[in-house]
Amino acid sequence: MRLLSKIDCPEDLRRLSRREIARVAAELRQELIEVGAAAGGHFAAGLGAVELTVALHYVFDTPRDRLVWDVGHQAYGHKALTGRRRELRRIKRSDGPSGFLRRAESPYDAFGAGHAGTSVSAALGIAEALRPNGDRRKVVAVIGDGGATAGMSFEAFNHAGHLGSDLRVVFNDNGMSIAPNVGGLTRTGAARSYFEALGLRYLGPVDGHDLGALVEAVEALRDAQGPAVLHARTRKGCGYPPAEADPYRWHATPPFDSVSGERPAADSAGAPSWTSAFADALLRIAARDPRVVVITAAMPDGTGIDRFAARHPQRAYDTGIAEQHAVTFAAGLATEGLRPVCAIYSTFLQRAFDQIVHDVALQELPVTFAMDRAGVVGPDGPTHHGVLDIAYLRMIPNLIVAAPRDENELQHQLATAVECGRPFAVRFPRGPVRGVPIDPDPKPLPIGRAELLREGGDVALVGLGKTVASVEEAAERLARRGISAAVVDARWVKPLDAELLAEVGRRCGCLVTVEDHALHAGFGSAVLEALAPLASEIPVRRLGLPDRFVEHGSIEEQWRKAGIDVASIVDAAELQLDAQPPCPPSRWRPPLRARGADA
Amino acid sequence: MRLLSKIDCPEDLRRLSRREIARVAAELRQELIEVGAAAGGHFAAGLGAVELTVALHYVFDTPRDRLVWDVGHQAYGHKALTGRRRELRRIKRSDGPSGFLRRAESPYDAFGAGHAGTSVSAALGIAEALRPNGDRRKVVAVIGDGGATAGMSFEAFNHAGHLGSDLRVVFNDNGMSIAPNVGGLTRTGAARSYFEALGLRYLGPVDGHDLGALVEAVEALRDAQGPAVLHARTRKGCGYPPAEADPYRWHATPPFDSVSGERPAADSAGAPSWTSAFADALLRIAARDPRVVVITAAMPDGTGIDRFAARHPQRAYDTGIAEQHAVTFAAGLATEGLRPVCAIYSTFLQRAFDQIVHDVALQELPVTFAMDRAGVVGPDGPTHHGVLDIAYLRMIPNLIVAAPRDENELQHQLATAVECGRPFAVRFPRGPVRGVPIDPDPKPLPIGRAELLREGGDVALVGLGKTVASVEEAAERLARRGISAAVVDARWVKPLDAELLAEVGRRCGCLVTVEDHALHAGFGSAVLEALAPLASEIPVRRLGLPDRFVEHGSIEEQWRKAGIDVASIVDAAELQLDAQPPCPPSRWRPPLRARGADA
Repeated sequence: MRLLSKIDCPEDLRRLSRREIARVAAELRQELIEVGAAAGGHFAAGLGAVELTVALHYVFDTPRDRLVWDVGHQAYGHKALTGRRRELRRIKRSDGPSGFLRRAESPYDAFGAGHAGTSVSAALGIAEALRPNGDRRKVVAVIGDGGATAGMSFEAFNHAGHLGSDLRVVFNDNGMSIAPNVGGLTRTGAARSYFEALGLRYLGPVDGHDLGALVEAVEALRDAQGPAVLHARTRKGCGYPPAEADPYRWHATPPFDSVSGERPAADSAGAPSWTSAFADALLRIAARDPRVVVITAAMPDGTGIDRFAARHPQRAYDTGIAEQHAVTFAAGLATEGLRPVCAIYSTFLQRAFDQIVHDVALQELPVTFAMDRAGVVGPDGPTHHGVLDIAYLRMIPNLIVAAPRDENELQHQLATAVECGRPFAVRFPRGPVRGVPIDPDPKPLPIGRAELLREGGDVALVGLGKTVASVEEAAERLARRGISAAVVDARWVKPLDAELLAEVGRRCGCLVTVEDHALHAGFGSAVLEALAPLASEIPVRRLGLPDRFVEHGSIEEQWRKAGIDVASIVDAAELQLDAQPPCPPSRWRPPLRARGADA
Repeated sequence: MRLLSKIDCPEDLRRLSRREIARVAAELRQELIEVGAAAGGHFAAGLGAVELTVALHYVFDTPRDRLVWDVGHQAYGHKALTGRRRELRRIKRSDGPSGFLRRAESPYDAFGAGHAGTSVSAALGIAEALRPNGDRRKVVAVIGDGGATAGMSFEAFNHAGHLGSDLRVVFNDNGMSIAPNVGGLTRTGAARSYFEALGLRYLGPVDGHDLGALVEAVEALRDAQGPAVLHARTRKGCGYPPAEADPYRWHATPPFDSVSGERPAADSAGAPSWTSAFADALLRIAARDPRVVVITAAMPDGTGIDRFAARHPQRAYDTGIAEQHAVTFAAGLATEGLRPVCAIYSTFLQRAFDQIVHDVALQELPVTFAMDRAGVVGPDGPTHHGVLDIAYLRMIPNLIVAAPRDENELQHQLATAVECGRPFAVRFPRGPVRGVPIDPDPKPLPIGRAELLREGGDVALVGLGKTVASVEEAAERLARRGISAAVVDARWVKPLDAELLAEVGRRCGCLVTVEDHALHAGFGSAVLEALAPLASEIPVRRLGLPDRFVEHGSIEEQWRKAGIDVASIVDAAELQLDAQPPCPPSRWRPPLRARGADA
């Protein structure tokens, strides 16, 4: 009988002896390997944090004491010890737990996580909130050396050193972000100097896999006065040899054979990913344009920049988890004639909103933002969707915002970005590309020109990026029902092709816009603005994400629930047609007009 | 004859002897005092940087060598030495230079500034761009100890230490942000440990007012290999006794008597400021609700939090220039039952966009964002306008967004924010309040309920926040011309009162929205979305800021140029009336683009 199966909550753990918890740690590690093999997910970080997780729940009185994890990649073990062990095999599925931390999921998740570097700020807030009550409850944050490259963690440490709060931090130092960690602090290894300079007490370093030493060190941390950091050295992937040997590749994994360590080669079965198409396009463009340099914020693999860096090591930068710096750094590069491409997921670029406005757009510098994982991203859930980017970008003066409908268009939009010499953002989704033929040369497109992909007279369907494929499919289905739908690929959110939309809208009498993005302030909203002077002639129905956060699950589920899948588009188009007044209308609607008559 | 008058560019300075440049420094200080006395503006930081400015331009070969200032408060002396001495007396006026750094203004402004903490990132980008050419040009950033509390500066230092670039930084340490600086690093004074831990070479400290020593130290910095920081200790306000004695108060100043140091008491002549009304309201609410705590990011004076902190020192936090941390710290406070109010200017809250989404809204935590300086702010110009906030907030699920039309409404909206227990943002402008009577008790309002302020049947004018006063005035003028305009105070951007707007819009046949915010994705855009199903019945004309950055000048000029002043509203209402079809027309079609308004 495994000890682990008797642990339904950390109370159960705390009743065990120190010898027994060593067994629990071993069993937990085995459990995580089995979960990873069966369900996939974030893997290597959790293995590295097994002893730490056990020690923290053993020493601290969770959930009375507040345990705040950073990011959440390493928290599967925490979930297993806090009543969610069985559910782990459904992790990230719509019927299972989140892949990250969520307050709504468990009282043991003292603070949600997903983006890196937030834990120290949150824990400091909690520590301050508890202080006036003379409360004895303790607060501990766990942050990796990767998360600590995020500027906000510095801000939090610096503030903690100023306040002198009873904040406890475990600095989980495994030398890795997702990829090997970067930064001067990693290079010097001078963690003690760093934390002490900011006014925190430094404890350690301790071997994060020596459970006995770790429990003692965590006890010392618990009993410290004022802000204190325990430096724990761990190995990502610890205890599973393939992951330990290549923790970068094993950061996250699809289900695998736990004995052999064999994994299905990613994407080998289906079409290549958008990420891979982006990497190809970038390599083609960079080969002919030496001004192109590339920046990733600690995601060389996820963004496809690793391949670029292998080919052009002098032209690729990994800033660490430092999106703010990455963007202003790019702006600096651009002032000297380079054409930097910031490859940052849509959700993480949120961190650099101010820098996009203040350092890039205001100065009209030719920086390109390549926003991978735009739209809903499926299993990673609400912290990771890229569904706000159109809204947070389209009001920025001087910025061009584009979205390609396929990988060939992506390469042309990227070429446009690099050659136009203006601030430029291009968003593309997670998942496989459409598999279209690729033109031999990426070439600049006319900026702001939409494309009429299909003629039609009853209703005009307007897609953007990934939704173009859906509206094309919807148009096919509508045709089978005798409805003639025009299809427009908007291509550019900004500048928007108001002329073409007006023309097609007039011809059809109505528009339906479809976006993989929030409805508020999104693409359809931009269409409403552009066509507002024609609103009485061209009713616009907008499909997109409603005003709530989208839970984790499959992308297909998320599209269906949001009503942006093909069936929903077909329904919306039919509804829109039904809503049209008959002719001649009592509420006036213009007759169909010849193309371009009054544009 | 002053030496200073012979210096039209730094070349002229570099022809002088070391003895002569000491004279230049003395004259420059006198010049800055005279400029401050005559024109006002940012003052004390520039006085503290006089010797530094002279030494940098003396030692470095500007503009070939790139000099990157942080923020810009301290750069008036730099402007004086780089051909803009005479223009300084018109600083921040529409016919004069910017109060900050601008690439478009001078080749000596290697990188624009306004928000703190950007200089090291930009300079690192420049250093990397110059490196492959074997370029001998040098790059130096100047950052204050205040700016260095911004997380992005840490990100940049950490990246510089990793890259080993030839980046030079002057750490201008005067112990001040605008207010006295905060942070563990300030408390420990361990600048050497901090920079060395991040992999930078540390030089200094040097007395930043000893020009001889400073020139030598800057020469050593110039000749350093790899990333290096020169620590210069300066005194804010140095050389002008009143400013030196109270550098906080003299951070910025209206014109003053340079001999006596007497300044007109701020705002004493006119109505109190919105900031002051906010501070009053907050004190009233906090007096009865012990859950209220307040957070400022290094702007206790600018946000009015200093008065709160004096009354409730245990309930007020200054995080330093650390908006990201401030927001997540607030979220942490909120998890334990507190009701934090983040008082951050609209423009600076841009830094924390991701944290608002990820840490506050997603977790539905009761954090209030009190966004002062919303709308155009006049003389501080494009880096400081708060004209994007509606757009970057209104697509965030769970967030309430409000704007009060007067100071009484402000206190009620704040009370609503604190009591409703939900994420809440309230925006209010720079400048004097309207001077309305204040109800004795701030009381919660019905969320999402707009207010019909004036009945009318011809056109409905919809204002929000500060523009409500303008639409009221416009309605008066229209009445004198025989046009009956209804006036609606929208009050809530989100949730928007679509019902009232539809009702009034139907009655009048059209709506005109007026916002002190970007047109793209802004308030009027939200109205279009809400009324899209009624678009054929209720044409909406939107007034707001066109899609370009708004230059510095007076707020009145900015409103007039944007077409949101009273006269423009009157014109727009009349145009809208002219454009209405008399009855369902057969051929009528509105222009594709509204004249001027939506362009």
